[in-house]
Amino acid sequence: MKAERPHLAAIRALIGHPGSRGLIPTPAAVLDLDAFEANLARMAARAKAAHLALRPHAKSHKCAAIAHRQIVAGAVGICCAKLAEAEAMAAAGIASILVTSPIVGPASAQRAARLARDMADFRIVIDHPDGAAELGAVAQGPIQVLIDVDPGMGRTGVHDAVQAVEVARAIAAQPNLTFIGVQCYGGHWQHIEGADARAAAVADGMARLQIVLAALRATGADIKVVTGGGTGSFAADAAQGVLTEVQPGSYPFMDREYRVALGDDPDGAFQQALTIAASVISANHPQWVTVDAGLKAFATDGPLPVALTEKFAHSPYSFFGDEHGRLMRPDTAVARGERLDFMPPHVDPTLDRYDVIHLVRGDVLQEIVPLEARGASQ
Amino acid sequence: MKAERPHLAAIRALIGHPGSRGLIPTPAAVLDLDAFEANLARMAARAKAAHLALRPHAKSHKCAAIAHRQIVAGAVGICCAKLAEAEAMAAAGIASILVTSPIVGPASAQRAARLARDMADFRIVIDHPDGAAELGAVAQGPIQVLIDVDPGMGRTGVHDAVQAVEVARAIAAQPNLTFIGVQCYGGHWQHIEGADARAAAVADGMARLQIVLAALRATGADIKVVTGGGTGSFAADAAQGVLTEVQPGSYPFMDREYRVALGDDPDGAFQQALTIAASVISANHPQWVTVDAGLKAFATDGPLPVALTEKFAHSPYSFFGDEHGRLMRPDTAVARGERLDFMPPHVDPTLDRYDVIHLVRGDVLQEIVPLEARGASQ
Repeated sequence: MKAERPHLAAIRALIGHPGSRGLIPTPAAVLDLDAFEANLARMAARAKAAHLALRPHAKSHKCAAIAHRQIVAGAVGICCAKLAEAEAMAAAGIASILVTSPIVGPASAQRAARLARDMADFRIVIDHPDGAAELGAVAQGPIQVLIDVDPGMGRTGVHDAVQAVEVARAIAAQPNLTFIGVQCYGGHWQHIEGADARAAAVADGMARLQIVLAALRATGADIKVVTGGGTGSFAADAAQGVLTEVQPGSYPFMDREYRVALGDDPDGAFQQALTIAASVISANHPQWVTVDAGLKAFATDGPLPVALTEKFAHSPYSFFGDEHGRLMRPDTAVARGERLDFMPPHVDPTLDRYDVIHLVRGDVLQEIVPLEARGASQ
Repeated sequence: MKAERPHLAAIRALIGHPGSRGLIPTPAAVLDLDAFEANLARMAARAKAAHLALRPHAKSHKCAAIAHRQIVAGAVGICCAKLAEAEAMAAAGIASILVTSPIVGPASAQRAARLARDMADFRIVIDHPDGAAELGAVAQGPIQVLIDVDPGMGRTGVHDAVQAVEVARAIAAQPNLTFIGVQCYGGHWQHIEGADARAAAVADGMARLQIVLAALRATGADIKVVTGGGTGSFAADAAQGVLTEVQPGSYPFMDREYRVALGDDPDGAFQQALTIAASVISANHPQWVTVDAGLKAFATDGPLPVALTEKFAHSPYSFFGDEHGRLMRPDTAVARGERLDFMPPHVDPTLDRYDVIHLVRGDVLQEIVPLEARGASQ
């Protein structure tokens, strides 16, 4: 093990002590276990009621301790976006992983083949006949594969039924590839405002998917798994009944982006379990104070972070360089050294900026867990 | 040592082999050593000619191997933005570090005191009398401190000469604090377009600083160090002659943000040494292709990344989710699996997304170095 950072070793000594949450060095990712566990239970219950397998996406957290808790709470396994993420999760003992992005080239194919050999249940998507050929050429035993179907977003996946059938044939030509189903994930649906508008978008995408499924079935393909869906589209996915498995990522944590889009919809009714703790490090200016959380503490691709601490609830935040943020002064005085909590703007790229997550219950720090797959985008 | 990620262990075996650069798993931070060394030499020569001490800012790279090379090339030491960054750099053998942000609270003060005790040359800024009291209370020996002076940005630093003198008195009241000078860093000046406009902004700030310096000198303060300045303001800083030391961060690497602002000014005439390597992972769409570098591969706070690889020079990039980017198709055909290089948008938060930097010369991978202080914003 690499030596732990000194500030973490110091706070680790205070685990279990009353008030230890307030001593965590900032900026820090802090997960409220009561809210987190309620979120896990809520999503597991929704999936069970809808007869959907739950395979949460680990790209949101990159953390094996979270993944293990998701599985204990009823998930069948996890999704990973990239091979390096899957390698880190497999090394941490996760037994069932679906890699949700196509991979390219012989070196990547070999890494996938090693994971398939070493893991109990490894699955990966393919969206081109060459992907099947590359993977089949290096397989050391059966590898479970799914065809990735473009939901109309144009990011990855086969474009239409003709391409899907071509990929299915390429898979069938490889003795070591086992076709198990399809993936169709509409990332662009997740943040559409309004449950009805989201449901309409999902319905369009599922109609598109049904055409592909019919074409594949016509070739005799046995489609066991139809996976897709996210935190934002769950209600629509359950209503459509096309998917057999869902891949939500953000529901354990929640973020500002989902709050803005989902509001009080059933899809948005998860608790804000993840917060970013920060401190006021300079208060010399009459109009604002400076906190120690800036471009390296928050995702910058979505809405701005908002302070959750009541005193600062009406204090707009703006970025103030790599390491700092500017928070307009509230009506009451603010002292240098005051602490506050922020709602993360977009949870996935926010968590990817941290080495660890601090698990708390009430005001007590319970555990510090590493993000094993942080930065593992290869 | 923590076990290395499998994809890094595999590419490490190819170090020194012709063509190994083209096999680095993507997305990856790649540093061209010829360009990097030319940049280091150029900035060292500029600083020497201007009789300015060069103390590069390590917040840009978070990497001890880079810091050591900067010192070999003539730097007197480095700057760090945060204590955790300084702790990581000190643990990697860097002997002279200035912490450029104020810290708050007894736990942080104790960490600074430990660094001062254990390092050859530790320095830290203070911008409030309470900061001096906190640090003095836990000092285990002399600690070198500088007064941080606000250049008119309002981020950190004393606001005016009156506050500066108050902080100087608070420092003088602590037997273990040794006042060595002031810091005045105008982050907001670095990206002003046009050398004349930057010079005018710097001149305003230096006039403000001169008032503070005069007030401090009138109290008998011995000001040995006046530190500040960045990559963008070097020419103006040298011309003004107020600073004794400069803190540029981006010059070894360069990025799109500086390219846009500085153009062909002398301040911008550094080579693009850092690139982000990416791969086309899906090419099913008629209008664009999808690369494996998205929100987690690039900073998202500034201009967009641009492809440097000639074939894609006129292909606009846009973000396509956490792990993917969309690149419009060029006139010529693009195959799944093609590789390309991007100019990073804003170098500091881009590098902070990676575990390692790949050092290359020509097409040969020479070394893989860790970012020891990546994520160390506490």
